[in-house]
Amino acid sequence: MPEFLKLRTAEEAWEIFLGHFAPVVTAEPCAVIDALDRVLAVAATAPHELPTFVRGTVDGYAVQAADTYGATAGLPAYLDVVAEAPMGARADFTLGPGQAALVHTGGMAPPGADAVIMLEHTNRAGGPLMGAASLQAGFAPFSIEAYRPVAVGENCIQPGEDVRAGDQILPPGHTLRPQDLGGLLAVGITTVQVARPPRVAIVSQGDEVVPPDQAPGPGQVRDINSYTLAGLVRRAGGIPLTYPIAPDQQDALNAAVRTAFDQADMVVITAGSSVSYRDLTANAINQLGKPGVLVHGVAIRPGKPTILAVCDGKPAFGLPGNPVSCINIFQQFATPTIRLLLGARPPRVHTVPARLARNISAASGRADFVRVRLETRDGETWAVPVFGKSNLIYTLVRSEGVIAVPLNSNGIPAGSEVVVTLDA
Amino acid sequence: MPEFLKLRTAEEAWEIFLGHFAPVVTAEPCAVIDALDRVLAVAATAPHELPTFVRGTVDGYAVQAADTYGATAGLPAYLDVVAEAPMGARADFTLGPGQAALVHTGGMAPPGADAVIMLEHTNRAGGPLMGAASLQAGFAPFSIEAYRPVAVGENCIQPGEDVRAGDQILPPGHTLRPQDLGGLLAVGITTVQVARPPRVAIVSQGDEVVPPDQAPGPGQVRDINSYTLAGLVRRAGGIPLTYPIAPDQQDALNAAVRTAFDQADMVVITAGSSVSYRDLTANAINQLGKPGVLVHGVAIRPGKPTILAVCDGKPAFGLPGNPVSCINIFQQFATPTIRLLLGARPPRVHTVPARLARNISAASGRADFVRVRLETRDGETWAVPVFGKSNLIYTLVRSEGVIAVPLNSNGIPAGSEVVVTLDA
Repeated sequence: MPEFLKLRTAEEAWEIFLGHFAPVVTAEPCAVIDALDRVLAVAATAPHELPTFVRGTVDGYAVQAADTYGATAGLPAYLDVVAEAPMGARADFTLGPGQAALVHTGGMAPPGADAVIMLEHTNRAGGPLMGAASLQAGFAPFSIEAYRPVAVGENCIQPGEDVRAGDQILPPGHTLRPQDLGGLLAVGITTVQVARPPRVAIVSQGDEVVPPDQAPGPGQVRDINSYTLAGLVRRAGGIPLTYPIAPDQQDALNAAVRTAFDQADMVVITAGSSVSYRDLTANAINQLGKPGVLVHGVAIRPGKPTILAVCDGKPAFGLPGNPVSCINIFQQFATPTIRLLLGARPPRVHTVPARLARNISAASGRADFVRVRLETRDGETWAVPVFGKSNLIYTLVRSEGVIAVPLNSNGIPAGSEVVVTLDA
Repeated sequence: MPEFLKLRTAEEAWEIFLGHFAPVVTAEPCAVIDALDRVLAVAATAPHELPTFVRGTVDGYAVQAADTYGATAGLPAYLDVVAEAPMGARADFTLGPGQAALVHTGGMAPPGADAVIMLEHTNRAGGPLMGAASLQAGFAPFSIEAYRPVAVGENCIQPGEDVRAGDQILPPGHTLRPQDLGGLLAVGITTVQVARPPRVAIVSQGDEVVPPDQAPGPGQVRDINSYTLAGLVRRAGGIPLTYPIAPDQQDALNAAVRTAFDQADMVVITAGSSVSYRDLTANAINQLGKPGVLVHGVAIRPGKPTILAVCDGKPAFGLPGNPVSCINIFQQFATPTIRLLLGARPPRVHTVPARLARNISAASGRADFVRVRLETRDGETWAVPVFGKSNLIYTLVRSEGVIAVPLNSNGIPAGSEVVVTLDA
């Protein structure tokens, strides 16, 4: 019978793994309109400034600011409105002193104007009092009273105020959000270089495991890890590849793992978690390449019987077969590895503060990850532990996040403030 | 010149809208393995219990618990191991008193056993001391010392402990996560009824707007709203449909909006936000059906010139053309509308507590939405307002969340604790 595992802390395990893994990001072009959630491989730089012209931000009148200085409701400034600035084009007139032009929000300020006064701060005063003639064919001039002064540049956006030419818009490793697509398109960038998503091979192992569309016989269970992990691979930005269930037999397992490994950038094997089966998995990983298994056993609950490996440069993981352990370990090690293969900046982890509804006892010598659901009571958020053995898939279905209890904690009493990491 | 808008608060506007909108959810079948992020239309119910058999949770020996009562390290219980329980099958033997069978984690406990003792709590003691014969061809019996008592059921999962037959597994309106796919497949549910994603037509309007792959002339800007909104529609669970840019001309706009409306379950028009153009948009919406425009102008900054409408049962929204306002209003009204069309339970909004890095001044008479980026300083999260006019797309690109300042607030001083709603 093989010896029991030599446990590493999660931090030690990750450090050992990183010491042997040098991720390579492969860039590929992608149309910006299809690039939601893709990871930029190359920084995006503004080819020109934005806006490219002085843009009004309100409905009102383009003016020379000096004409409005000192204007009040009691003593308004009088201006002649001599034209209407066109939308989407440069005005073919130039404003002079005492003159104004109607402008719409987002329109280009006409030459000669240096500010815009809001419609709400003016009043129509009748015919052209100052005697100015129309500057635009078909435009009937009229005069306005301005009740307020405007400063030079007021109610306008200056060229380059949004972004300047040559500015780095987005750094490499940034995951593109809806507004980022807009930011890129605004400066005419319609294609970006993004990271090719890593292909993650998922192999479920176990003589007791049958495909989910098959009725399990006595002692058999359906394969669920392949599909929960496929979902987590997608969430992390990878492409999941699933394979037929591999048996607990060394030669057949080796062949199945080798096929998966060769077709992917990374392989994840979820196995029955008994000691003997873990050895099968470790052997199958070791035959893939050097250095092979680096860590076998991690001080995490649930998830102790975990394998971290690098084989000829590709990561390989052996995860426990129990669904709760399997997902916990995947999130701890495989998700960050996929992000490394994408060259992605660490995502902001979504956490919520909550009050713990029940005592959590200490797990001596292990970092403990306790699943919780959130409840609102009297306006306060409570984290209710969903206790359950790690074999129970419904522990996960009934919960929405996790509390990490550190390695050498004495447990957490009910009523404590805790931080819940929400499921992605 | 048309009159200024009669503003409604966001709550009033939403209530008026809901008074005229009766969402209908259409169900369609979907393979569970493809159902990540889909919304369940019909509750999922467990067709059978899980697990279906008594399952061991550790590596060890199946025993009759009574044989171990009183066992200690000094005075161990002696048992004869007479067989090995097979994985994925029912044992073809029945344990008697004083007998034990090797079991692996996840294996079915053999008939006659009522508990499992962990390998770690036993020791091999040599040949079969109790004289029991092998119950399995080819299995050489041996004896063990058990150092601890186990209770009936210990280290086992009982049938139905994970989920019981007939239990509702997931409610209608639930958005499927990776673990939910596992939970469904575990009980053999391979197809679910999910909500058909609503098609959301997006029409950008404006004489100054050109497609993003076109070089804008003087006074022109590229269409970005169509694509940021398409991203937000996808995030909300809908299918975005984009259309050519519509001009600021009533007949052409009416025709463009009608085409989009007829092909979709909901229409969103983003327009130049000047008063006169807003009237074009309102007219175009009113021609679509009854009752038409319900709200025109909302006390939200940014985003005042907003239209909420229902036309012959379908929602229609007129959003400001400024990108920041446009996205803010979309998230306030269009995202929840898409969720209603999906019959989706309200998602948990991701928020983080933070300390405000700069004063936010009051916006009298309006609910104010201030974009922020998050910074960690000395382990504390700070929300740094990204001030900028709502015309500036990079206000959004440079930020990652929003602080809501209520309608009649006096502003928020720097150093206050605030809640930041993170971008989806």
